[in-house]
Amino acid sequence: MRIGALEAGGTKMVCAVGDENGKINERVTFPTKTPATTMPDIFAWFQEREIEALGIGCFGPLDLNKKSLKYGHITSTPKVSWRDFDIVGYFNDLDIPVGFDTDVNASCLGEAAWGCTKDVDSSIYITVGTGIGVGIMVENRLLHGLTHPEAGHILVSRAPNDDYPGVCPYHREPFFCLEGMASGPAITGRWGLSGDELKNRPEVWGLEAFYLSQALMNYIVTLSPKRIVLGGGVMKQKQLFPLIREKTVALINGYVPLPDPEFFIVPPALGDDQGIMGAIKLALIQTQTNLP
Amino acid sequence: MRIGALEAGGTKMVCAVGDENGKINERVTFPTKTPATTMPDIFAWFQEREIEALGIGCFGPLDLNKKSLKYGHITSTPKVSWRDFDIVGYFNDLDIPVGFDTDVNASCLGEAAWGCTKDVDSSIYITVGTGIGVGIMVENRLLHGLTHPEAGHILVSRAPNDDYPGVCPYHREPFFCLEGMASGPAITGRWGLSGDELKNRPEVWGLEAFYLSQALMNYIVTLSPKRIVLGGGVMKQKQLFPLIREKTVALINGYVPLPDPEFFIVPPALGDDQGIMGAIKLALIQTQTNLP
Repeated sequence: MRIGALEAGGTKMVCAVGDENGKINERVTFPTKTPATTMPDIFAWFQEREIEALGIGCFGPLDLNKKSLKYGHITSTPKVSWRDFDIVGYFNDLDIPVGFDTDVNASCLGEAAWGCTKDVDSSIYITVGTGIGVGIMVENRLLHGLTHPEAGHILVSRAPNDDYPGVCPYHREPFFCLEGMASGPAITGRWGLSGDELKNRPEVWGLEAFYLSQALMNYIVTLSPKRIVLGGGVMKQKQLFPLIREKTVALINGYVPLPDPEFFIVPPALGDDQGIMGAIKLALIQTQTNLP
Repeated sequence: MRIGALEAGGTKMVCAVGDENGKINERVTFPTKTPATTMPDIFAWFQEREIEALGIGCFGPLDLNKKSLKYGHITSTPKVSWRDFDIVGYFNDLDIPVGFDTDVNASCLGEAAWGCTKDVDSSIYITVGTGIGVGIMVENRLLHGLTHPEAGHILVSRAPNDDYPGVCPYHREPFFCLEGMASGPAITGRWGLSGDELKNRPEVWGLEAFYLSQALMNYIVTLSPKRIVLGGGVMKQKQLFPLIREKTVALINGYVPLPDPEFFIVPPALGDDQGIMGAIKLALIQTQTNLP
C-alpha cells in the first residue's frame, strides 16, 4: 500500500510516502508559509505519488470531533493564516481515507506502533522543545475528549531560587505552567544561552528536571502510563534522563508502584521519525477501523 | 435481570440488587471488618438473592489487569487484613460474570450511565471526602493503565499564607498533594473544626477552592474532559462550586476553550448512589462486552 504521511509543523511540513510497516520510501520538506502558498505544493506532491491513504499529524489546537462541522480544522492557533484552516478537507479531492490527530499524539502512536512503546498499550509521549506537547495513548487508543491534551500547560511549583517569570503568556505568576518554565525558550530566556552552550552547567539540568519531574508525577497519578517517552530538542541533553528518573521516583515516594525507572522513563526509539511514522499509522488505522 | 452490586468501602460494604436500568430494588450495609468476618455475610446475601451478575466498586489500590495472576485482588492497602485479598475470586462459586473497578471509577460510570454525564463520553468524577479519589472515563471507557488513576495525589502549590503540612504521609514539604491539603481530614486538621462547623467561614472555602482548582486545571489540560463531577462529603458545601468554577476558569486563562462553567463543573445527579449504581453498570458491561 502507498501511504502518505504529513507532519505539519509550525516551521516545516514533512511529507512522506511509506508502507504498512512504517517504512518511509520517499520524503520531502516544505517550509510552512501560508495555506495558500504551502498547501498546493503538498497536495500536488501526494497526488503525483498516487497515495491510497493519508495520515496527518498537525500542530494544534485542532478540531478532532468527527461529529463537528469543523472536524479536520486547525482552530485557534496564533499562526493567523492557518486559523480555521480545513487541512483534512483540503485533501478531499484525493478521495482517500485521511487520518488526523495532533503532532504529539502522532508521535505517541509512532513509538507505540514501531518504537519504544510497542510492548505496552498505555503510554505517553512528551516533546520538550520550542513548546512542550504531550501525546497520550490509553489502552491502545489515543486520548481525545472535549478537544485533545494540552498537557504541556500543566502547573508546576516554581523553585524557591528561580525568579524566571516563564515564557507562557497564559500562565504566569503566581501559577506557572511547565511549558512556561521548562521549554527550550524558557531555558534560553532564563540563562541567556542555548541548551548546547549550557551543556556542562549542572544547575541548568537540575532545574529542568525539577520542573519536568513534577509534571511526570502528575501524569503518572492521573493517567497511570506503562511507559513515558521524552523526546524533542531539549531531551537531546541525555544527562537529563537520570535526573528526571531520580526526581520523579522521589516525588511519587512509593505511593504507586513503578516499573524500573530505566525502562519507564525513556528516550524515543525512532530518532526524529516518530511523528511522520505516526502519521503513517494514523492513515493505516483510518483505512481499517475506528480504533484507536 | 437480577444484578448484584457491591460498593466496598473502608468503613462499610453496601450490597444491592438492581436491574438493567440502574433501579435498586433492595440494599443492605455491612460494616467493613476483616475479610473473614465480613465476606461470608456478603456472599450469603447475594447467593440467597440468586443474582445473575455482580459488579464491584472497591477501595484500592487494586489489580485490574485481566492478564495478571492477581487480577481481582486488593493490593497494597493500609488496611492490613484486606491486603492481597482476592475479592473477585471470592465470588467464584456463584459462577456469574463479575465486573470490577475502583470505587471512584464505579462512581464515574454510574453518573455516566444514569446521572449528570450521560450526554458526554469523556468525564471525570472526583470525590472529596476522607480521601480524594478520581474516576476517569475517556470516550466511554474507564481509564486503566499500569494500574488505575490515583489522581487525588496530584501535586498542588501551597498557598503563601498556609503553613499546614498536609495529611498525606507520602507527599509533604516541599511538594504537597491535593489529598494532603484539601481532603476532609486536611480541613479539620488545619482549622480544628469540622466542615459543617466551618460553613460560614469564607476563608476556609476560598482556600479549599484554591487547591481544588489547581487540580482541576491539571486534569483539564491532561484529560480534556467534557464534564467534571465533584462529589463526596466535602462537596456538600455547595458554596464551593462557584468558587471552584471561578478559580479554574481564571487558571486556564483562556488557553483552552471551556464549556459554560455551570454545566462543566457540576455536583453529582445521583445523590450518594453513583457508586452502587456504577457497580450495577460494571456488572452489566461484564455480561455484555469487554468495554469499557
